Amino acid sequence: MSENKEFNPSCPISISDYPNVLLAHGSGGTLMNQLIDGVFKIAFKNKELHKSHDAAVLNIDSSKIAITTDSYVVDPLFFPGGDIGSMAIYGTINDLAMSGAMPIALSVGFILEEGLEMEKLIKVVNSMQVAANKAGVDIVTGDTKVVDRGKGDGIFINTTGIGLIKHNMSIEPSSVVDGDAIIISGDIGRHGIAIMAVREGLEFSTFIESDSAPLNGLVSKLIDSKIEIHCMRDLTRGGLASALVEIAKTSNSQITIDENNIPVREDVRGACEILGFDPMYVANEGRFIAFVKRDDVNKALNIFHSDELGKDAKCIGYVSADKPGSVTMRSCIGTMRVVDMLSGEQLPRIC
Amino acid sequence: MSENKEFNPSCPISISDYPNVLLAHGSGGTLMNQLIDGVFKIAFKNKELHKSHDAAVLNIDSSKIAITTDSYVVDPLFFPGGDIGSMAIYGTINDLAMSGAMPIALSVGFILEEGLEMEKLIKVVNSMQVAANKAGVDIVTGDTKVVDRGKGDGIFINTTGIGLIKHNMSIEPSSVVDGDAIIISGDIGRHGIAIMAVREGLEFSTFIESDSAPLNGLVSKLIDSKIEIHCMRDLTRGGLASALVEIAKTSNSQITIDENNIPVREDVRGACEILGFDPMYVANEGRFIAFVKRDDVNKALNIFHSDELGKDAKCIGYVSADKPGSVTMRSCIGTMRVVDMLSGEQLPRIC
Repeated sequence: MSENKEFNPSCPISISDYPNVLLAHGSGGTLMNQLIDGVFKIAFKNKELHKSHDAAVLNIDSSKIAITTDSYVVDPLFFPGGDIGSMAIYGTINDLAMSGAMPIALSVGFILEEGLEMEKLIKVVNSMQVAANKAGVDIVTGDTKVVDRGKGDGIFINTTGIGLIKHNMSIEPSSVVDGDAIIISGDIGRHGIAIMAVREGLEFSTFIESDSAPLNGLVSKLIDSKIEIHCMRDLTRGGLASALVEIAKTSNSQITIDENNIPVREDVRGACEILGFDPMYVANEGRFIAFVKRDDVNKALNIFHSDELGKDAKCIGYVSADKPGSVTMRSCIGTMRVVDMLSGEQLPRIC
Repeated sequence: MSENKEFNPSCPISISDYPNVLLAHGSGGTLMNQLIDGVFKIAFKNKELHKSHDAAVLNIDSSKIAITTDSYVVDPLFFPGGDIGSMAIYGTINDLAMSGAMPIALSVGFILEEGLEMEKLIKVVNSMQVAANKAGVDIVTGDTKVVDRGKGDGIFINTTGIGLIKHNMSIEPSSVVDGDAIIISGDIGRHGIAIMAVREGLEFSTFIESDSAPLNGLVSKLIDSKIEIHCMRDLTRGGLASALVEIAKTSNSQITIDENNIPVREDVRGACEILGFDPMYVANEGRFIAFVKRDDVNKALNIFHSDELGKDAKCIGYVSADKPGSVTMRSCIGTMRVVDMLSGEQLPRIC
C-alpha cells in the first residue's frame, strides 16, 4: 500500500500492550483517550481536532460554523425514554449546543444489517423525524449501507451536525479559568440505568427512563441572557466524572466538587448500588455541566430553573489553580476523594 | 414508545413484500431507491433531501455550503489502489465536488469491532491523512465507537464533508436540459473488479487497481473555466447505468448514449466477462459524468484532457426531451438498448 508509508511505529499506544481493539477503547475512559491521543491525533494533525471539544469550529466567510459527528451503536435499539433514532438526533444536537452553536442541519448515515425487520427501521426513522422537529432542525442529506447478516447489529446510525455560532465567546475547555463556578443541569445516571434494565431484563419498583433530550433550547437561553460561559460538556460516555477529568486536564486547572450537590434520584442510586455502578460514571443523554464566571452563577441558575430540562440544576463546585489537572470531590460524609477516569467504562454500547 | 406515534403504515415499501432489509437495499439499484423514497423521504420531509443529489446545499449568512455524508463498509479493508481509509476521504470529497463545492472540512466516525488489530487501524488512519493531504482538506472532528466481536466487521467509517460553493450554477439533476452533452471522465469498472479480485482470490494477467481518487482538483478547473455545468455525478454504487437512470428520472429527460464511446480497459472487460458482470453497472471511485451545455463540450473536453484524472474523457451522449425518464444506448453493434437500474447490485459492500 503506497498510501501507508506514513505508518508510525513510534505511536504512544504500544501495539505490544494493546495489539487489538477492546470494547473499552470505545467507552469514554482512559483507554479511549489513549486511542484518540495515540492514534487519531498523531495521524490527523490540525488545530481544531487538538482542542478536545465536542465540536470543531470553523470560520467560513464571515460566519462561525460548528461541526460535530457521532455514531450510535446503542444496544438495545429501543429503551424507556427513547430509541437509537431520537438519541442520534439529540446526541448530535447536544454536541453542537456544547460549543454554543445552534443547529442548522443534520446528515444521517445508516449501516443496516441484512435481515433487519423493516418495521423496526421505519419506527426508528419516524422517531428521528419527531426528534428533529422537537429540536427544530432538518435532516438534509443521508446515506444507507447494508452489511451481511452477522457483520452488523441491526442499526448503526451516524449523525453529523452543522451549527451556527452567533456569540463571541470561546466555549471550550481551554477557556476555563480559576474561580469559575460549575453548574450541573439536573440529576444524573438515568440513561445508563434505563439501558441496563432492558439489557439485563431487570425490573425496579419505579420506572427509570432515559434523560435523552435536546439541550439547544436551554443553551440558547443561557447565551441570550449574556451569561459569561467558559465551557459546557454533556455527560455522555464516562458520565460526570470523565467530563470533569477531561476538562481539568485540558484546561490545566483543579476542579473541586461537592457530592451533596450532585442530584441523583433515589431509585437510580438504589439501582446503581444493586448493579455495583457509581452514578458519577454512568452515561446521561440530556444532562450537561456549564463552567460560568463566578459572578454569573445565580443569574445562570435562574435561567436553568426556568427550563424543564434544567429545573433541578445546582452549582456543584468551583475551579481553582492549586493542583492543575486534578478533580477532587468532598463526599457525603465530608471526606475528600480524588476523582479519576475509569480505564474502560461500566456499560459498553450505551450510546 | 410515545415518540413513534407517526409510524406510517401506508408507506410505499410494502412491509409484506420486504419485511426484512436485504443486502440489495444498500446497493444503489431499484430496491435502494425504493427504500429511500418509501422510508427515508417519507419520514424526513424537507426540500434539500428531496433533490436526490449527492450533497445538500444550504445558505448560511451570505455563504453557500454543501454537506454530504457517506458510510464506508467495503470488504476487504485493503485492496489494490486503496483501502477503506483513502476511500472514505475521496468518496466524500467527490460527493462535494459533484455539486461544485470545494471541501473545507471533514468529520470522521469510526465503528470498530472488538478484536480489530490495532496495526490495521493505524494503517487505515494514516492512509486517511495521506488522502486528506492529497485532497487538501482537514479532518476536524471525530468519534469512535467499539462494538462487540461479531457485531461489526473490522472497521466501518463514516465521513461527512462540508464544502463551499463559490459559483452561481445549480449543479443538480433538475438543471439538466434538452441538448446537454454528457462527458465521462475516463474508463469504468476498475474499482469493482479490483475489489472482486481480492475478495474471490482471482488473479488476472494484468494488474487491475481501483480508480479511487479525489476529483475536486479537476472539478475546480472546470468551474474556474466558466463552463456551463448542469449536473455532475460520480459513478459509485450501481455504476454508470444507475447514475444515468437516476438523472434521467429526476430531470424528466431522455438520455441517449453510445457504447462505443464508453472507455473500458481490455483487462477489465475480460474480467467482467469471466465474472458475468456488465461494466455499465460496476462501481467506480474516481470517475464521474458531467452534463454540460452543448456549446461548451469541446472546451470542457480540453480541460478534462489536461488533468491526469480526465485524460481519457469522452463525450458519451446527449440529453433530449423525447422519452422523459429513459436511458437508451446504441450498442457496439449498432442496435438500440434500453438501460435500466438493476434491482440490487452485482457486488455488495463495494464501498
